[in-house]
Amino acid sequence: MGWTQEIEAAAGRIAGHVVETPVMRCGGFGLDHPVEMKLEQFQHTGSFKARGAFNTLLGSEVPAAGVVAASGGNHGAAAAYGARALGYPVHIFVPELAGPSKIALIERIGADLTVVPGEYANALTMAQQHEARSGAMQIHAYDAPATVAGQGTLIREWERQGLQADTILIAVGGGGLIAGALAWLQGARKVVAVEPETSCALHAARVAGHPVDVEVSGIAANALGARRIGEICFDLATRRGTQTVLVTDTAIRSAQTALWQERRILVEPAGATALAALMSGAYRPEPGERLAVLVCGANIAPDPLNPDNSA
Amino acid sequence: MGWTQEIEAAAGRIAGHVVETPVMRCGGFGLDHPVEMKLEQFQHTGSFKARGAFNTLLGSEVPAAGVVAASGGNHGAAAAYGARALGYPVHIFVPELAGPSKIALIERIGADLTVVPGEYANALTMAQQHEARSGAMQIHAYDAPATVAGQGTLIREWERQGLQADTILIAVGGGGLIAGALAWLQGARKVVAVEPETSCALHAARVAGHPVDVEVSGIAANALGARRIGEICFDLATRRGTQTVLVTDTAIRSAQTALWQERRILVEPAGATALAALMSGAYRPEPGERLAVLVCGANIAPDPLNPDNSA
Repeated sequence: MGWTQEIEAAAGRIAGHVVETPVMRCGGFGLDHPVEMKLEQFQHTGSFKARGAFNTLLGSEVPAAGVVAASGGNHGAAAAYGARALGYPVHIFVPELAGPSKIALIERIGADLTVVPGEYANALTMAQQHEARSGAMQIHAYDAPATVAGQGTLIREWERQGLQADTILIAVGGGGLIAGALAWLQGARKVVAVEPETSCALHAARVAGHPVDVEVSGIAANALGARRIGEICFDLATRRGTQTVLVTDTAIRSAQTALWQERRILVEPAGATALAALMSGAYRPEPGERLAVLVCGANIAPDPLNPDNSA
Repeated sequence: MGWTQEIEAAAGRIAGHVVETPVMRCGGFGLDHPVEMKLEQFQHTGSFKARGAFNTLLGSEVPAAGVVAASGGNHGAAAAYGARALGYPVHIFVPELAGPSKIALIERIGADLTVVPGEYANALTMAQQHEARSGAMQIHAYDAPATVAGQGTLIREWERQGLQADTILIAVGGGGLIAGALAWLQGARKVVAVEPETSCALHAARVAGHPVDVEVSGIAANALGARRIGEICFDLATRRGTQTVLVTDTAIRSAQTALWQERRILVEPAGATALAALMSGAYRPEPGERLAVLVCGANIAPDPLNPDNSA
């Protein structure tokens, strides 16, 4: 099957298991043009990741040993939620870097959880060892066709909700979400990849001509801090000549603050990264260019309702 | 004009000045049925109040002395925003009870601001004195036809977005929002008024047979703490036989927590009050009854992004 059929099949598979997230159009943010937004942070477990996780689970023969995933936090929560919703055992390996808010979220869902010292790559190694030992099925966070097809259902859904934009800005970590968008759109709209300066695996790969390891740090690293861009994303982005833009942590924080102060949309730094490219001028639209920003996640720390309890 | 024409005229007047807020439908919250939600907390200044404020301003000859309003916070912010957007001077009288987050919001908008010791009624007295002295136009928070017609545009908009519910639950303070809903719907759907046990001006009026003063307290009092229900609301609610239900502060807090933990929707206590009626069982739907919850405000304190700065 080609990507269009894969994504159509994914949409059919996950319907009823995921939330159709709302869209809106508004001005503000110091911009001289309105933006369309899709509020995907209202998806189960607070990010788009549930789409890929449910598509993987519902399209597979899940072994008796259940499911395993490694994750900076959001993918782990989604894999845990999907597995528990469908009745499978699940073990999540999370790097310490994920932070207490995401770790508490995974615990609440009821998954077995191992917190691994250090960064994402260490958690991935331990998850692979668990997979080999137990026979559990691994759900990859971004670089697998079923994951990408699941994330691709997001843009398909947005188009059915009336998306008008010429250009969609999407934050990139490992590249599963933007790969899904590129796979669905096939050039029908411009897609701009937005990465933090300090976690820019796609940008580095485009410069090098192939995926390379990068150092990751900064305020969005626990969601966007993939050390190497996924092959699927890299291939699609190269084929489409996808533009990458970089934003500073300061720009991300400003966008996060503006989303709350102007619109009462509370997101984690990764969820504000695409808007940061517009607010900071890192991406400068042409006159009349219609713009859309994907708001992708809201698993912030500390807990906004109990700030004292989650230091 | 009748209410239908008043609300149609208001919708035409305020189009382009207010946000068309998103809607969604989802399960969860421990309920065995999905709920439709309208996320009106994304309106300008974080609550539905901008609708009534813009309708009042755009339908009036505003004097050179500008605009004055008294408010527990949300109405004051909306009146200030509307006046500044349209270029009028504006003076807001806020009770101390409004709290630092709402006071900071009004300051950011750029209104003249007087913080009045005590509760809403004291701020209203001072605003009336300012009106008499200066000739400024007062925008009433809830008990004026232009305010009610402006709030009525919300349910008109929701119906145009595909609202399916048989029953809509709405939190009630002074009654402007529910009055707008009752005026627009004219009995076409059931409307349930939800009030905190400790701020229940409509319930007390329905029991007494006429509006009466009530004591106000509790976690939602800075948004729902009107001492007396508006006459317009009382008349419409009596004519329609509107059911009132009461919820505890504990139930409100549980709904607020569930909106964040399950859906990443962050609201102030008043914004969770309607959902609290379903989650607590204070309102028990019939089998198959389709339900909608109006999410009306998100001006929480402390600031969720800077919890240490707003004690």
